[in-house]
Amino acid sequence: MSEDIAEQPAGFARLLEDGPSTAIAEVAAEIARRAPRSVLFVGRGTSDHAALYAAYLAEIRLGLPVASASPSAITLYGARPDLTGTLVVGVSQSGGSHDLTGVLSVARETGALTLAVTNNPDSPLAQAAEFSIDVVAGHERAVAATKTYTAELLALLMLIEGIRSGDGRLPAEERAALEKLPQLAADVLADRSAAELAQRYRFAASLVATGRGYAYPTAREAALKLMETSYLPALAFSGADLLHGPLAMTDHDIPVLAVVGDGPGGRSMRDVVGRLGERRVDVVTIGGSDVDGASTRLAVPSVDERYSPLLDILPVQQLALALSLARGEDPDAPRGLKKVTTTL
Amino acid sequence: MSEDIAEQPAGFARLLEDGPSTAIAEVAAEIARRAPRSVLFVGRGTSDHAALYAAYLAEIRLGLPVASASPSAITLYGARPDLTGTLVVGVSQSGGSHDLTGVLSVARETGALTLAVTNNPDSPLAQAAEFSIDVVAGHERAVAATKTYTAELLALLMLIEGIRSGDGRLPAEERAALEKLPQLAADVLADRSAAELAQRYRFAASLVATGRGYAYPTAREAALKLMETSYLPALAFSGADLLHGPLAMTDHDIPVLAVVGDGPGGRSMRDVVGRLGERRVDVVTIGGSDVDGASTRLAVPSVDERYSPLLDILPVQQLALALSLARGEDPDAPRGLKKVTTTL
Repeated sequence: MSEDIAEQPAGFARLLEDGPSTAIAEVAAEIARRAPRSVLFVGRGTSDHAALYAAYLAEIRLGLPVASASPSAITLYGARPDLTGTLVVGVSQSGGSHDLTGVLSVARETGALTLAVTNNPDSPLAQAAEFSIDVVAGHERAVAATKTYTAELLALLMLIEGIRSGDGRLPAEERAALEKLPQLAADVLADRSAAELAQRYRFAASLVATGRGYAYPTAREAALKLMETSYLPALAFSGADLLHGPLAMTDHDIPVLAVVGDGPGGRSMRDVVGRLGERRVDVVTIGGSDVDGASTRLAVPSVDERYSPLLDILPVQQLALALSLARGEDPDAPRGLKKVTTTL
Repeated sequence: MSEDIAEQPAGFARLLEDGPSTAIAEVAAEIARRAPRSVLFVGRGTSDHAALYAAYLAEIRLGLPVASASPSAITLYGARPDLTGTLVVGVSQSGGSHDLTGVLSVARETGALTLAVTNNPDSPLAQAAEFSIDVVAGHERAVAATKTYTAELLALLMLIEGIRSGDGRLPAEERAALEKLPQLAADVLADRSAAELAQRYRFAASLVATGRGYAYPTAREAALKLMETSYLPALAFSGADLLHGPLAMTDHDIPVLAVVGDGPGGRSMRDVVGRLGERRVDVVTIGGSDVDGASTRLAVPSVDERYSPLLDILPVQQLALALSLARGEDPDAPRGLKKVTTTL
């Protein structure tokens, strides 16, 4: 897991190289040409969080309504929604989930534009889809996904910005911003404070992760990483939902990890952190600037919120790894999990 | 909270009476006439779980793609997705959430068909929408929503079956099935075993709730009720997602509450419960028949899975109430919560 985490800056750089970036641009150009009216993303686990990030991008950057079909409606209940004119994107690191392959097959039959985003271009999911994008993250050793997650995020970002530009290629300014990511990611990973934070959570019985907008997928993924590797029951809420019930639960004993950037999502989180602080909840933020009510902060570079998910998750991965080791667990092989999960 | 829970059979009966059911039928007929191409539901907290139930219904019963916009994309990031031909449904017991009202206002401006489903027909949300359905649940005393939740479920079910029939009215067979619900709900509430189960969870540090398909919203709502009233960190996963990571976390100390009906969703859960049983996890099921691997069961009538969410949540509400009291808390006024939550 440590090696997988360390490879992420190189993974970003690889996706931006001529070959992979051209492959994504070609798919983006073809999708732009066909002008889908809406987008539907499907994924499971970590890949579902990458899909959720892409859903925000599609809504905000492309102005497209985002559908969010539950695979079970199609695979278990036989739903056959009319997906003509819809871009259906399956996201899966292994490309081996039967239920996602089922959704893409049905979608393709019913006239949807289908795309698989995977780390395995020979997988059943990639075969089932009309188009396929390889996130070129290389073999992931640990069961808990890290480098395939951030590679999915960047590939989906490049795809959507490519669709937005119309010809599939990234505008010069966008490309320049993305080309800074490998170095920024390396800088974040060089900071060891996340690993030190593991001591703070050594005996935590549960944890709440929260964020809003682009940062919400990061909160979801943070919770999952801590559950997978450290068996820490971790609950993720959007900052807005947190005020609708779960707030009652937060107290001195339940630490909160809040992703608070410097854009619109982060600004709306500052009030939430303030309310938690009033309740004397221990809040650690992840972001580019300090937040009133929080006790400490994992520093990440302050970038456009659209890029933040690619960096904000890095210290959380380090934290999950360090906490797993501190608790005497094996982060590479969590009990009960398989690398490829098959559900019908 | 106890009185709110007890009123649910009467709440079902009230919605099925001539006046309210005709009002829903008229909205359904008009929506059917305008033939939306897709549906988008927005809600927060408990109402989001009712919206999720309706999303399954729309996909499976109407064959419509379901969009799932995040309010923040619209209210924080200024996204303006083209919602022409989309039915946008805001679900909120109070009708007072600014962010949902914002989404419905923007949706209406951009050509969507808009509908508010609330327990307050004079609310800002109801005013913002073109159409409005009153779930006629009466004043809810406790902060934790119970009777407004099940009233939202039934109103949404009547709406969607009315759209399906084309003229807004329920087919005779559907109406006959629904008319059994008040008595079935009363029977479930008369069984006190859920309250007894509170002893089992008196010292639980966390809990996992799970279900698939139509039962997944019940798992989500179960987790929220336990968090709101008993401050028990409760995590909800679809049965499929549970196998993708969170399974590692389940052990002897983390009880699982699994909603396992007798239809397709429940059948696919049996394998999940079996795997949990192999790991010697304590699983309590909610459903109509026993499940291998589970240690005990909260019995509810075996009905079509489409109707199960209206009954399955009832023993969970009783459990949440009893657990809150057993832990010395005040279920009527959870710390830190307000009845109407406003987020921008």
